[in-house]
Amino acid sequence: MPNFTLYYWPVPFRGEFVRALLAHAGATVDEPDSDAVSAMMDMDPREQPVPHMAPPLLVDNASGKAIAEMPAICLWLAEQFNLTPSEPHQKARALKVINDANDVLDEMTLNGGKTMWTTESWTHFLPRLRRWMKIWEAAVVQDLLSANQNELGYIATGTLWGTMTERLPQLRALLSAEAPNVATLVEQARSQGALSAQAEESRKRFGNVWCGGEIEKSLREVVQG
Amino acid sequence: MPNFTLYYWPVPFRGEFVRALLAHAGATVDEPDSDAVSAMMDMDPREQPVPHMAPPLLVDNASGKAIAEMPAICLWLAEQFNLTPSEPHQKARALKVINDANDVLDEMTLNGGKTMWTTESWTHFLPRLRRWMKIWEAAVVQDLLSANQNELGYIATGTLWGTMTERLPQLRALLSAEAPNVATLVEQARSQGALSAQAEESRKRFGNVWCGGEIEKSLREVVQG
Repeated sequence: MPNFTLYYWPVPFRGEFVRALLAHAGATVDEPDSDAVSAMMDMDPREQPVPHMAPPLLVDNASGKAIAEMPAICLWLAEQFNLTPSEPHQKARALKVINDANDVLDEMTLNGGKTMWTTESWTHFLPRLRRWMKIWEAAVVQDLLSANQNELGYIATGTLWGTMTERLPQLRALLSAEAPNVATLVEQARSQGALSAQAEESRKRFGNVWCGGEIEKSLREVVQG
Repeated sequence: MPNFTLYYWPVPFRGEFVRALLAHAGATVDEPDSDAVSAMMDMDPREQPVPHMAPPLLVDNASGKAIAEMPAICLWLAEQFNLTPSEPHQKARALKVINDANDVLDEMTLNGGKTMWTTESWTHFLPRLRRWMKIWEAAVVQDLLSANQNELGYIATGTLWGTMTERLPQLRALLSAEAPNVATLVEQARSQGALSAQAEESRKRFGNVWCGGEIEKSLREVVQG
């Protein structure tokens, strides 16, 4: 029996942060198919392993304990596997990175594809995406993410910008221009050890897909434009 | 000098969770005016107390340490003031409540007013709001939020549903119908001690305002409809 069961769609996106932490911790994980993910999401909250709205949902198969909400799952794993500093401010800073990453995912997909990108809306969004990159750059330069490769903020940074700029290579130059130290960190994080293997596994499994769905088609059009 | 400085708009909404935790912990806080909040948000990320996109931002005046992202601020305060269980799964469950609350705020305001509510979109959203309430009800009934009034999940639950149904009393009957145990918890949480005083202070300071702006006008129209 694998250590964990992860309910998430077969795309990188939000689930990739959980996969990266599990891989880094050396934990094994089973991922049920989309039908099972849908069925879990539609279940009466009283019957769910933990009452929740949407995936990702992570279940510890030994204890049956479960958590939803990506940042909460990441904190759970980080504390179990000693991937976060214990000092409250440092830990909160790592969690801030995770919540920032979650915001970037929401913004890049117009909150799960509530509307589709147009050239105009993308042009309007680009300064904000650049600002997100500058925020990360300042955090890396000020060493607010620990350079320690065992830590949550580092793994989340590699996962966010690495997965995004691999799947949407048109954004690579933007990241290098706005956040050169982030780009270097991302390359280091994903070129060795468990995170490299996890990134490779993800490419094999999901190909070029990032968030999936109609919103990915729309995003690819404006990014190429 | 107050213990903390909170940069947030003069409305309850996301800042109210930070205010409630500070009040519960007996910490003093200064809130600069909207111009200062705007100036902070527009500052070069390298110059900010912690590089961040948007308020809330909380600064510890003694140490100068700062955190943004509401869930990360809440974890920071909860760990400093012993308002969270130390066991990783229980702590992650409390953080899940905070991230769920953040999602509910985003959904109720159409992600910060990106579009305005219409009768049609509100009608379409209502089953989802009911489901959020059912998720909370299941968590309370299963005692997944600790009944301990000193804890993060309890304070966040009181703050989310209490503030919302006070400012938008039309939603009170919905909460009582879908989540009677949550409604009871909310009333208990906000009728005594520091949380009661904080709620009263908030009513004096902000009146009937909840999220503010054009989106609040739009929300009030459909809720009354």
